Amino acid sequence: MSLSLSCYRCGERYDDGTRVRCDCGEPLWVDTEPTAFSWGDCRDRGGMWRYEALLPVDRPEGVARAAGGTPLVRSPGLDDAAGARVFVKDEGENPTGAYKDRGSAVAVPHTVATGDDVVGTVSYGNMAISTAAHAASLDRECVVFVPERTSSVRLELIAQYEPTIVQVAGDYGKLYGDALDLSEHLPIDVLVSDAPTRISGYKTALFEIYESLSPAAPDVIALPVSSGGFASGVWLGIRDLERAGLIAEPPRLCLVQTATADPLTRAFEAGETDPTPLSPDETGDTIAHSIGNPDPPSGARALAAVRDTNGAVVSVTDDEIRTAQRRFAVDAGFCVEPASATTLAGVSRLADRGDIAADESVVLVPTGTGFKEMGTGEAEVTTETVRRDALRDQLESLLAP
Amino acid sequence: MSLSLSCYRCGERYDDGTRVRCDCGEPLWVDTEPTAFSWGDCRDRGGMWRYEALLPVDRPEGVARAAGGTPLVRSPGLDDAAGARVFVKDEGENPTGAYKDRGSAVAVPHTVATGDDVVGTVSYGNMAISTAAHAASLDRECVVFVPERTSSVRLELIAQYEPTIVQVAGDYGKLYGDALDLSEHLPIDVLVSDAPTRISGYKTALFEIYESLSPAAPDVIALPVSSGGFASGVWLGIRDLERAGLIAEPPRLCLVQTATADPLTRAFEAGETDPTPLSPDETGDTIAHSIGNPDPPSGARALAAVRDTNGAVVSVTDDEIRTAQRRFAVDAGFCVEPASATTLAGVSRLADRGDIAADESVVLVPTGTGFKEMGTGEAEVTTETVRRDALRDQLESLLAP
Repeated sequence: MSLSLSCYRCGERYDDGTRVRCDCGEPLWVDTEPTAFSWGDCRDRGGMWRYEALLPVDRPEGVARAAGGTPLVRSPGLDDAAGARVFVKDEGENPTGAYKDRGSAVAVPHTVATGDDVVGTVSYGNMAISTAAHAASLDRECVVFVPERTSSVRLELIAQYEPTIVQVAGDYGKLYGDALDLSEHLPIDVLVSDAPTRISGYKTALFEIYESLSPAAPDVIALPVSSGGFASGVWLGIRDLERAGLIAEPPRLCLVQTATADPLTRAFEAGETDPTPLSPDETGDTIAHSIGNPDPPSGARALAAVRDTNGAVVSVTDDEIRTAQRRFAVDAGFCVEPASATTLAGVSRLADRGDIAADESVVLVPTGTGFKEMGTGEAEVTTETVRRDALRDQLESLLAP
Repeated sequence: MSLSLSCYRCGERYDDGTRVRCDCGEPLWVDTEPTAFSWGDCRDRGGMWRYEALLPVDRPEGVARAAGGTPLVRSPGLDDAAGARVFVKDEGENPTGAYKDRGSAVAVPHTVATGDDVVGTVSYGNMAISTAAHAASLDRECVVFVPERTSSVRLELIAQYEPTIVQVAGDYGKLYGDALDLSEHLPIDVLVSDAPTRISGYKTALFEIYESLSPAAPDVIALPVSSGGFASGVWLGIRDLERAGLIAEPPRLCLVQTATADPLTRAFEAGETDPTPLSPDETGDTIAHSIGNPDPPSGARALAAVRDTNGAVVSVTDDEIRTAQRRFAVDAGFCVEPASATTLAGVSRLADRGDIAADESVVLVPTGTGFKEMGTGEAEVTTETVRRDALRDQLESLLAP
């Protein structure tokens, strides 16, 4: 299945189903024909396949049909913490608990429809889980490349779908390039974080945000950023709707990084087009495992998205992330992973410095559920213990104002 | 807010917002006026609030709006294991990862709209998590009653929303009755498993199944059964659609229990109307923590639902549950909790004994995600370890047919 690919930067076009990057070095994405698109072209069904007209594959069977269609919820309880009018787009409500399913729902079926290649991916987190699940659903072999010494907890989450798990000894950060090489020379299609078909899937999150809010539109959309793939997809969605005449002014894309690995924030603040990869001594540990990429392959494209939409990139600390994660739960009822909690922390920073006004509508996109990482049993929990026969009496005093 | 409640068994009616059980002893549910309902009356929005016309509260703000609207997916990979044509209704794609959110989305806002009562619940699992999340979203105090010695893992999942957690020393199985007493005498509304407002929320799962499959209809709907609350809600949904003239023949409700605590299977097989509570020496441990209720408060109603729809109740062993859980992941890409995997195991049993035919459409309802309980790090995982510079060579042999 050949795809019409193009480069956001130099405009070069390719007619190729497997290519990932342009000769100029930048990542490609899939062109569709959105000029003729209107909301009335949406298919009458739930989930991301409402937008089949703007996707490069036909709606597949299986778990791919369960991807997307996540709720967008006004969450006034978060307004104070954010400093703006908050909507939450809960991407945790995907089949494997993360927005990655939108990408896998397009990318994996595309690989399966194209030939006999084994499906692969480079991840030890949400993308690994999602890719393995979608490959399993289509009965296609899957190989997941993880770093050596990946925790047994992560391995268990991935292994349930029974892919082949390869622990790679050596510089895992270089595996993006290796993956493109493997895809070219072996009967495997390694679906990296910014594989063009994945990016197509991600744009459906943007479509859903606009369709849900219509006729209103968001002022700001806040995403965590790691590889830059999701930001690219959301930007592609904005461009599609702009070309279709459905967006007058784009939402400001605000991308949030963890302060321990923030090449995009650094480049944004320095006014640079291309991020400089961080060396190991420039990065540190973070609770936001899902992000923190020192050399994001779609980093320059994510920066272009931010500048094109008059947005921003901002970094937040682990303390800010912990506070924000607690606010999501306690003030809004959402269990989000630390990487997702960055969105609230980042918007709060931007509001503090006057980049977002209190009456503006901000869509926070928690990209993954917190349930995968919780329940370690290590948190301190305070409880009361009451004998059953004393319950009424003791509860009475407990409930007294 | 007064509700019109009725008893499925004796037909008695009550005009009362807080009552849970009829004078005859059976649980109540909320009457609505479905005779005038048609699919065209659905609101044009995602999630369970499409069916606001059939719900006893107006659409609330916050996380309640994110409940329901889960995907229904044809999963041919499970046909062989089930012995029928399988559809999966993935209730794990709810804000707290379980169908309980449908109930909490109605019950908690009802309590909040009715007065100043604190919200309570009796659970140390999915219902506790869900109730605490929905109370947090509406900024209402919440008290969760858990058994003594609840695991720290469970406590952590509940505690994230910061309810008051009360560990009850004594016979936890008796807490259902205590809860009704507390609700009557103290400023707390303990939303038990079959609180009438919860049951109203659950019926939206049935509406979604029918609307998704329309104009086709399922032959069988398979649910795990514990308290009988969810089965009651699905039955109420069937009755609503029957009264509206939208269902010609009801789907057969098949309820699945764990063999270590199966009072409903025993009653069903003995042809009894009311289940006999099991004594401690008649029950045992199971991996299906979320079910296994020796004295289900809506047990008789669940049995009535099964008989009314010409369905069945069946028990499955932990070994069958493990196999079914693996099949959900490996053949369909869904991560479901053990209690949810019972649906596949149960249907397989019913198909084996000829109660379900191979060409019948069966909707399995995994009621909760498996992600909350996974990642213990205890599973055995097989991996290959490969040096990065040998990746291409070694992968080549790995991929060789």
